[in-house]
Amino acid sequence: MKTTLTLETIYAPIAAGIQRVPAVIKETLRTPSRQIEDVVQYFFSKHGKLLRPALVFLGGGMARSLAPAAEVISERQETSEVYLAAATEIFHAATLIHDDIIDSAPIRRGLPSLHVKWGPQTAVLAGDFFHDKAVVTIFRHGNERIIPLFLKTAGEICEGEVQELSEKNNINLSESTHFEILGKKTASLLACSLQTGALIWGMDETRVDALGRYGHAFGMAFQIIDDYLDFTGRESEFGKTLGADLEEGVYTLPVIHCLASSDRDKVVRILHARNHAKRFPMLKKLLQKSGALDYSLEKAQGFIRQAKQALAPFPESEFKNSLCELADYVIQRER
Amino acid sequence: MKTTLTLETIYAPIAAGIQRVPAVIKETLRTPSRQIEDVVQYFFSKHGKLLRPALVFLGGGMARSLAPAAEVISERQETSEVYLAAATEIFHAATLIHDDIIDSAPIRRGLPSLHVKWGPQTAVLAGDFFHDKAVVTIFRHGNERIIPLFLKTAGEICEGEVQELSEKNNINLSESTHFEILGKKTASLLACSLQTGALIWGMDETRVDALGRYGHAFGMAFQIIDDYLDFTGRESEFGKTLGADLEEGVYTLPVIHCLASSDRDKVVRILHARNHAKRFPMLKKLLQKSGALDYSLEKAQGFIRQAKQALAPFPESEFKNSLCELADYVIQRER
Repeated sequence: MKTTLTLETIYAPIAAGIQRVPAVIKETLRTPSRQIEDVVQYFFSKHGKLLRPALVFLGGGMARSLAPAAEVISERQETSEVYLAAATEIFHAATLIHDDIIDSAPIRRGLPSLHVKWGPQTAVLAGDFFHDKAVVTIFRHGNERIIPLFLKTAGEICEGEVQELSEKNNINLSESTHFEILGKKTASLLACSLQTGALIWGMDETRVDALGRYGHAFGMAFQIIDDYLDFTGRESEFGKTLGADLEEGVYTLPVIHCLASSDRDKVVRILHARNHAKRFPMLKKLLQKSGALDYSLEKAQGFIRQAKQALAPFPESEFKNSLCELADYVIQRER
Repeated sequence: MKTTLTLETIYAPIAAGIQRVPAVIKETLRTPSRQIEDVVQYFFSKHGKLLRPALVFLGGGMARSLAPAAEVISERQETSEVYLAAATEIFHAATLIHDDIIDSAPIRRGLPSLHVKWGPQTAVLAGDFFHDKAVVTIFRHGNERIIPLFLKTAGEICEGEVQELSEKNNINLSESTHFEILGKKTASLLACSLQTGALIWGMDETRVDALGRYGHAFGMAFQIIDDYLDFTGRESEFGKTLGADLEEGVYTLPVIHCLASSDRDKVVRILHARNHAKRFPMLKKLLQKSGALDYSLEKAQGFIRQAKQALAPFPESEFKNSLCELADYVIQRER
């Protein structure tokens, strides 16, 4: 597994689509307001991994590769694909902007968060604006199966947020509740993006469900690794402040696992320590020693196996190959 | 016109529907999160005028009164009516919550704003949660004409917000741009609510357009009076801090009109005065003397006339009567 996968090679079969996304995002977010225009420019000055748009294109590829003979590439569907891909990224951006306010996160993609740079007022409005533009785009370009899927997903993301808030500082948070929150907050939109791509091309329900299972398991692994890297990654590489979740009372899998172990009392003592500067390095050391970090990595690997299994019914294709590689990439990434 | 209209008498023909709204709002916003539950309880502990739900029911009444002979009251449509009525109020609440953050408004309905009482984090999330639940309800109970109308309206509200932000502190803001902002931010949802009620019962497009004209003109008058009362109302009566718009650099009609008059220099001097405590009373006096407040009242009256004219094609009914009274109420209200 130690071939070095890069997103560039994984995205190769969908490179033409992905390349169009940044321009379509900017087109979709065009506004006469100078201030919001500046926010758009700033937020998208560093693109993330464009994971959600990539999943839309890969879902589309999976659908088209099922019936290559009968395939008639419709221009309308291709346009829908790129606009819906942009919409997933804009939707994701909207949730990040509000999340960063909700979690008081100071840094996003290596730059000060919107609410730090422009104040919470502009950040709230920008999030609403992004959300609105994403929804309008989904309605314009989605079909009667895509639109309800997105609505359900938007609801799940919000529910996940609410649930996360209500579980803050809960030292008895169970792994299953934590997984439920991750499923709603992160995995749901990743699964929805992949399924959206497939639904543009009319994939049958059984196969769309299989893609949903891939997306869900992939999303779980993705977030578990994100939280794992919070304890093992280097700050400068990661582009966000390590330990921020801890400061906010959001306990992630390593902490939850360690709280359920014989080290529980030690964890509680650290969580309640007055000296916040020392808490994070102490906790890191304990999680390492107790095996909680290894446990998280194994859990993520388990989800990656599940994700790949979900693809078994599909014929081999460059798109299926990319989805498998993407799963491996998530595990081996360092940021 | 000096009969004292009360909302109770105006709402009499729709009293049964209006009475159900608070319970349906609470049902729609049910959540396992204790914190968000507290927010719901707090926010709706004082109901506003329930104007938007009232317009939904009145629109429904207008539609049913067109064909009383053929009228078959369908239970499904009645259920839709009350849920969509609740959804308009929840949608409105979501925009108020985020607006209050955006405008740093300390008070709402006589109580500290959510972001003051619970912090901006919870307020952002609560706004998103309300918005999401409203949208889900609209999709569940709306039809193929209502859903696109709501989406268009949501987009307009957000555009109005963005435009307002970009015009803050602009002493050259024109009346027409200001009216465009009011139209999008306030009037659009009021018009949409009335039209939604009518669309549940399948009203024809021409008549729905006429209701849209009523709703728009009514909404303009409503907001102009709101801004007028900011300079003439008493704080304790009004349930919000007077002069808040001014502090935020949002200029309303009296100020805009005075800035376009021979008193322009005086207004500019006041707006740029260092002593903020003195600015508001000084401005109040000037606006009074210059006739800018009278001008605003006349403009509002003009919109109310337009609103009533839009109802001319409709046959007399208790619902039409309520819409006419509601228009008068908006002008004569003191808070």
